[in-house]
Amino acid sequence: MAAPVSPPRGMRDFLPADKAKRERALGVIRATYAAHGFDEIETPVVEDFGRLHAGLGGDNEKLAFNVMKRGLDAAALEQAAAADDPDQLADLGLRFDLTVPLARFYATHRAALPQVFRAVQIAPVWRAERPQKGRYRQFVQCDIDIIGEAGILAEVELLTATLATLDALGLTGCSIRINDRRILLGMLAAFGFDPAENSQVLITVDKLDKVGTAGVLDELRAKGATAGAVDALEAYFAASPPAAAAAGAPGAAAGTAPTTGSRSHDELAVESTPLTVRSVAAAVPDGVAPDAVAGLAAIGAALRDAGIDGDLVFDPFLVRGMGYYTGTIFEIEHPEFSFSLGGGGRYDGMIGRFLGEEVPACGFSIGFERIIDLIGDAGEADAEAIVLVHDKAAQPTRLLTLKSQLVARGARVRLERRTKNLAPMLDRAAASGFTSFAIVGTETTDASELDLRSLSA
Amino acid sequence: MAAPVSPPRGMRDFLPADKAKRERALGVIRATYAAHGFDEIETPVVEDFGRLHAGLGGDNEKLAFNVMKRGLDAAALEQAAAADDPDQLADLGLRFDLTVPLARFYATHRAALPQVFRAVQIAPVWRAERPQKGRYRQFVQCDIDIIGEAGILAEVELLTATLATLDALGLTGCSIRINDRRILLGMLAAFGFDPAENSQVLITVDKLDKVGTAGVLDELRAKGATAGAVDALEAYFAASPPAAAAAGAPGAAAGTAPTTGSRSHDELAVESTPLTVRSVAAAVPDGVAPDAVAGLAAIGAALRDAGIDGDLVFDPFLVRGMGYYTGTIFEIEHPEFSFSLGGGGRYDGMIGRFLGEEVPACGFSIGFERIIDLIGDAGEADAEAIVLVHDKAAQPTRLLTLKSQLVARGARVRLERRTKNLAPMLDRAAASGFTSFAIVGTETTDASELDLRSLSA
Repeated sequence: MAAPVSPPRGMRDFLPADKAKRERALGVIRATYAAHGFDEIETPVVEDFGRLHAGLGGDNEKLAFNVMKRGLDAAALEQAAAADDPDQLADLGLRFDLTVPLARFYATHRAALPQVFRAVQIAPVWRAERPQKGRYRQFVQCDIDIIGEAGILAEVELLTATLATLDALGLTGCSIRINDRRILLGMLAAFGFDPAENSQVLITVDKLDKVGTAGVLDELRAKGATAGAVDALEAYFAASPPAAAAAGAPGAAAGTAPTTGSRSHDELAVESTPLTVRSVAAAVPDGVAPDAVAGLAAIGAALRDAGIDGDLVFDPFLVRGMGYYTGTIFEIEHPEFSFSLGGGGRYDGMIGRFLGEEVPACGFSIGFERIIDLIGDAGEADAEAIVLVHDKAAQPTRLLTLKSQLVARGARVRLERRTKNLAPMLDRAAASGFTSFAIVGTETTDASELDLRSLSA
Repeated sequence: MAAPVSPPRGMRDFLPADKAKRERALGVIRATYAAHGFDEIETPVVEDFGRLHAGLGGDNEKLAFNVMKRGLDAAALEQAAAADDPDQLADLGLRFDLTVPLARFYATHRAALPQVFRAVQIAPVWRAERPQKGRYRQFVQCDIDIIGEAGILAEVELLTATLATLDALGLTGCSIRINDRRILLGMLAAFGFDPAENSQVLITVDKLDKVGTAGVLDELRAKGATAGAVDALEAYFAASPPAAAAAGAPGAAAGTAPTTGSRSHDELAVESTPLTVRSVAAAVPDGVAPDAVAGLAAIGAALRDAGIDGDLVFDPFLVRGMGYYTGTIFEIEHPEFSFSLGGGGRYDGMIGRFLGEEVPACGFSIGFERIIDLIGDAGEADAEAIVLVHDKAAQPTRLLTLKSQLVARGARVRLERRTKNLAPMLDRAAASGFTSFAIVGTETTDASELDLRSLSA
């Protein structure tokens, strides 16, 4: 027997049932984003090496699969060896996200695009991560981005379209956690952290979900963060959230007396419908980022007044990993799942990089690979899908005639050669969405003579 | 101003209108092949280097983009330099066709697949060809393959499904050119060519379209092919096609007296509806490949009797480049275009290679990149697609409310900020399939108050 044969390490094949489910879900996503005015674009799977490694990709740049130059000679190999620099041998790389290609696309085609460009990209990306459960080296991202709109209209259109898409996939009842990087950074400054510590502090704060407030404070102290700032943060944690009491918002935790016990990430969040300047501002130290506070309140009001479903929660400790965010950041959660279904934010500095200009941009990415595991089969089944079971000796002409007649009346038709035991074959057909079957008799010459039997359980 | 920014050499971006057209055409192709019982699968875009270079890809193996191993150190680079072998540094490569991945997929998943597996793959492939007009380094292939069926049922299902797909794309009236590699090789043997010359002779014969029979004979003589065999081929060319007279077929050229002038490729073809053993056999030297002759006649009869549209033409000099074909080969042509819209054939030796077994297989590939340029816009337009033109100062809440109301009633909706001159923006929207627009007044709070105006020309 031949040795087992597998797809490349960390990558997957999709068999018919999975592929069909994925395509149906992608169809729903495409249709919903199109209805919301987003335009789909496509770029090549590779980009020039230099663009991929221009600093827009953060840590993901290190995970790029690099494509070798063609026609490398011994001299080029020796030069790379002497410099100990394999990157000299690459001129292209597989994209590790859809944002770098979007920035490149926008720089290439700006003159042909509308002033405010709403883009959707649904495409695979590649990262050479250590393979592990639920992490793949090739996976699909679904990104929407609004480029050229500096106001909150971008945020509310993105959030509305995303909630509608999740609804259409059957994931109703999602909530939005929202924050603004300016609030996050303003709070750190108000507590007394040195701006030079910010990135280290944020890495720790981002662990709130796992370790709670006590764990965050322990780690900051262990890291040697500015002691007075950590004390101020501790006092804030103990008193938070004051917003609930201040705003009298219904969904919020009651504004109890300060506590010294560890608190969870969720306890620090402010839920009020809609968010208001008062409810947001009450949760942050005085005078922190007033523009950002007003922006969050405006987003809350706009979503509420337009009748958009989905709870909006102000989470002053929502961090989002990527360093390129400059304003609002958000994640979408579903009450049944502990992880977010997607996230995004405003990143005004980045899309214009290859143009050499500042261009406002805001984007959202849904986690397609997570979502596909959560949803049922999104599309409707075929109206009529028929398996025609035939003997090996059956005449091709007759089979083809029957098949053509059934296809012509709108059915999906599969010929299957009769096996000794029909059950496994029919089970597999039912799992592939076939609804009925018929045994083709030796005399059958017209589809109307077929004895169609249901395949449903 | 920044330097111009382009996609990687030889590759393309797709802007919204092109992307939408491509997705609609792909939807038509997917739906038609599904109706005909084909199951879509997907494999990763890369395969292990060794499998890509196992000899199944012919000349295309040389055109592969190779992916570098991660974490290469100076020692590895030195070793590759010493061996003058850049391939040592690659462990993966971008697929150059969909056939090698299918063979790998089949070896990996055979136990989970039906006895006769009808696969459809619609996906990009990559070839490092010299970029030129109409040739791209990333392009989409649409392949269907039937694995495990040794009889002509495979050929007739493939041809039927392909004609139906081209019909659905608006390319009606296609014809099929068909041949069998066993006939082709049997004819060369009957003329007296040495089997060792076959591949060189076939390369020349494949130029019939361009140079006619005289050109082929000249080139064969210049190459030093067996003189007696070239003479026999010349005599055959002069007498061909005798089939028309023999079978009395209506569409065929009259069986005129032998001629010494150069003849075109088309003049050598036999068109009879249906093809019969007699009409096919009459066009080849006595006793050549009787099984293949009977097979072509059976395919002809099956298609005719099942009422499949599309003329079937026996072309004894259809070559098809790929060396892996073992039986029938075919191409589909449209009367309006000089090139084929796709082709395929039987390649029984190949799919089982990674399994170490012989597995019968027959496949067909349509030329998606050519076809997309030929067809009109395949899908129906949106029922209602509305551009809402607003001032920069318009309140987001109000815009979002109007948009949500229109989306809820089934429309596709795009917000567009008002520009000084509306015409270019409205033209672009019309080109993107938008059907109407409305100016959002400062007082408009409900979609029913909008003054919708048609965008059609």
